[in-house]
Amino acid sequence: MTTTHIFNVEMTCEGCSGAVERVLNRLKGQGVEDISISLPEQKVSVKSTLSADDLLEIIKKTGKKTTYVGAQ
Amino acid sequence: MTTTHIFNVEMTCEGCSGAVERVLNRLKGQGVEDISISLPEQKVSVKSTLSADDLLEIIKKTGKKTTYVGAQ
Repeated sequence: MTTTHIFNVEMTCEGCSGAVERVLNRLKGQGVEDISISLPEQKVSVKSTLSADDLLEIIKKTGKKTTYVGAQ
Repeated sequence: MTTTHIFNVEMTCEGCSGAVERVLNRLKGQGVEDISISLPEQKVSVKSTLSADDLLEIIKKTGKKTTYVGAQ
């Protein structure tokens, strides 16, 4: 099942959001279908077949403070 | 054997360097002994018993463009 999960991620600059984008883009075709990142809103949306928990772990590996907001 | 490995990491702001620091700090006591990060020099030094390859993989998981410079 494909769900869009929303995460709050502490991103300060475009280098920060670019790093998160790069990590998630590597998973395209491996469960991640689409990504949308808003630096001003500190929000990362991931359309994916992966669970929210798995996605949270993946995003946390970037070293960014991340919390799960919910499914859209 | 403990070696200090130097990496060039693309970091744009303190959020970037903080994320790299957080990831490496999680490995303290698990092979990482000391860390030094210079944002202006785009340089990350890691005193560690882990191999340069392992450290490179760990830092790359942050999504930052990273290259190995050498051992100190």
